[in-house]
Amino acid sequence: MLQCTSCRKTYPQEKKVQRCECGEPLELELQSGKFQKGETTWERFRDFYPFDFNLDFSLGEGNTPLSKAHTLSEELDVELYIKNETTNPTWSFKDRGTFVGIHRAIELEFDEIGTVSSGNMAESVATFGKRFGLDTLIFVGADLITEEKITPIAIHGPRLIKVIGDYGELYFKTLELGKEKNIYFINSDAPFRIEGYKTISFEIVEKLVPDYVFIPNSSGGLFRGVTKGFRELVKNEIIEEMPTLVAVQAKGCSPTFRAFKEGNDTIAHFDNPHTVAHAIANPYPPSGNAVLREVKQHSGLVVAVVDDEILKVQREMARDGIFAQPAGCVGVAALRNLREKHGVEKNSKVVALATGAGFKFLSGVKGVKGAETVKLENIQEVF
Amino acid sequence: MLQCTSCRKTYPQEKKVQRCECGEPLELELQSGKFQKGETTWERFRDFYPFDFNLDFSLGEGNTPLSKAHTLSEELDVELYIKNETTNPTWSFKDRGTFVGIHRAIELEFDEIGTVSSGNMAESVATFGKRFGLDTLIFVGADLITEEKITPIAIHGPRLIKVIGDYGELYFKTLELGKEKNIYFINSDAPFRIEGYKTISFEIVEKLVPDYVFIPNSSGGLFRGVTKGFRELVKNEIIEEMPTLVAVQAKGCSPTFRAFKEGNDTIAHFDNPHTVAHAIANPYPPSGNAVLREVKQHSGLVVAVVDDEILKVQREMARDGIFAQPAGCVGVAALRNLREKHGVEKNSKVVALATGAGFKFLSGVKGVKGAETVKLENIQEVF
Repeated sequence: MLQCTSCRKTYPQEKKVQRCECGEPLELELQSGKFQKGETTWERFRDFYPFDFNLDFSLGEGNTPLSKAHTLSEELDVELYIKNETTNPTWSFKDRGTFVGIHRAIELEFDEIGTVSSGNMAESVATFGKRFGLDTLIFVGADLITEEKITPIAIHGPRLIKVIGDYGELYFKTLELGKEKNIYFINSDAPFRIEGYKTISFEIVEKLVPDYVFIPNSSGGLFRGVTKGFRELVKNEIIEEMPTLVAVQAKGCSPTFRAFKEGNDTIAHFDNPHTVAHAIANPYPPSGNAVLREVKQHSGLVVAVVDDEILKVQREMARDGIFAQPAGCVGVAALRNLREKHGVEKNSKVVALATGAGFKFLSGVKGVKGAETVKLENIQEVF
Repeated sequence: MLQCTSCRKTYPQEKKVQRCECGEPLELELQSGKFQKGETTWERFRDFYPFDFNLDFSLGEGNTPLSKAHTLSEELDVELYIKNETTNPTWSFKDRGTFVGIHRAIELEFDEIGTVSSGNMAESVATFGKRFGLDTLIFVGADLITEEKITPIAIHGPRLIKVIGDYGELYFKTLELGKEKNIYFINSDAPFRIEGYKTISFEIVEKLVPDYVFIPNSSGGLFRGVTKGFRELVKNEIIEEMPTLVAVQAKGCSPTFRAFKEGNDTIAHFDNPHTVAHAIANPYPPSGNAVLREVKQHSGLVVAVVDDEILKVQREMARDGIFAQPAGCVGVAALRNLREKHGVEKNSKVVALATGAGFKFLSGVKGVKGAETVKLENIQEVF
């Protein structure tokens, strides 16, 4: 059963519906189960899905490392762990949601899938779409996509279209056209994409029970997925209570943060967005209101960080061994701000999600010294 | 105990020695044990190491997926699996060897480590060196390193030096200087780097027993590591016999292939190397002779493929879901050649190693169609 996250209207699971008539996103009902033994994410957490997975077509998505950030932990006086989603098959967390979303598309007998993306999700959907043998239609926002992000999408052979215009609006447009043309759009906060992301919470809890989880936030899909994971963990008595979930936006595109700060229940379009964190730059997030509701219900937080902080943290995280793209660094940047203002207690157990690889957007990296150059015959001079 | 791979002279394990007096590389004696239960590579294969690992500093290296390549399997009439090393923490197989090599450096009480690299190993050693708190000195070959490869190394904060001159010679020069200056160079075929790579064979055999394994081949370190893994598996009766191991070079830099073809026991310097597969372009591989010996002893093969074949396979592998750098595609290119000439039997179980991520060298990708462009208000025209 699918239920509206706002008005609670329900829809039977076999319906090809993505959002409620009221306009707000849907969610699969909370699932019951316990962790099973198994090597893959999908085997261990199979109780929490209403269908079986075809693991022959898995690329090993999920099962990512939770790595202690030693230097940053010491500096910030917390136990900081990075959930390193950059080791996914297409090097971002999107693969978890794409894998589950494609199973849903197949269950509903679609031959064609699509997505709307600033880069990461496009690559993920192009990869799995081709692997599963489905026609794949990818829209990317012309303002958000750098040239270096085109090749890794295009090489998988989808139909790839750059769209000039508002990225937030594009999402709703494709859902409409998808219904008309019978294309299943696995967009950012599609109900079964959310079901993929909840495995992040399950995997964290296999290792430790965090006090805080910092989640880069754009459309709201990832935040909702991680929150749903923790809600299912509490419901099934695997953990006692929800950690504090912190949704983090880049200040240059922070519609959800603005609504939260102003005490509004609904977001407004964020005009003239501008941030280095392209991957979280949706000016009109389709799950923005849903995130506000979740935050209210579970005493979460929404915060925003500026580009300079993000890029500084990118270099600091690299020192601890993880090279993430700017959007994947906002969590640690927010943690530093909250520690300095004493919102996060000393010695807290903190998890920050590094959502995508630094490789994906090299031109965004700043403040890194290049190489010295020497001739081989003079190499002794180096020492 | 370390033993010369050629003259069999032995050295006690506590010695800071990397190569034999005779000039050839050393190897740790074959280890005994069985697979243990455990989540990480290092826990499951701990029997096969003479020291313990500090897993607090692991980044989850190894434990990579073995993914069936469905389209290529069908086309080539074999069961083809890709060992996807692109999901390592720095997105190449090098991390396995770096992690073990650093433990060796710490055991020998070095404060500084170094390496010589065309990119992947530099990034790996820079990452783990900083994470372990060691001074880290990285030499890269000026001819082989593209600008896009500098940032992901430099961001970790090593001392990074581009060297103009012969890349093959640079290796030997650094070993000399390392001895003099007390810097432990974890170069391509350092004995304990090899010990890291053998986990690839162990992980493959956890899933299936292959008939063939195709291994991109440059310095020879990876080939030796994978071979040593299979030798230990046979010695410990975990498998019955060695698979056929195929070392694959890019024709434009193929000193080991040339020696093999001409029936020579030793390689000669390959002048004027030129290939898109930069990561395997060592013109004077330090373990070239050792690879020839292994191939002879275990009925292996050395083959070479041209750049056009490599780049075509890069696009085909992407269709099956894996976007590897050119050097990571030579295995499948060689498989196609051997299938066409009937060297590899129909229905064989084949594993090809995808050694590093396609992201690492985007400017090398060819023959990929870019994006169409459309305005949001005209999006209907797309359908």
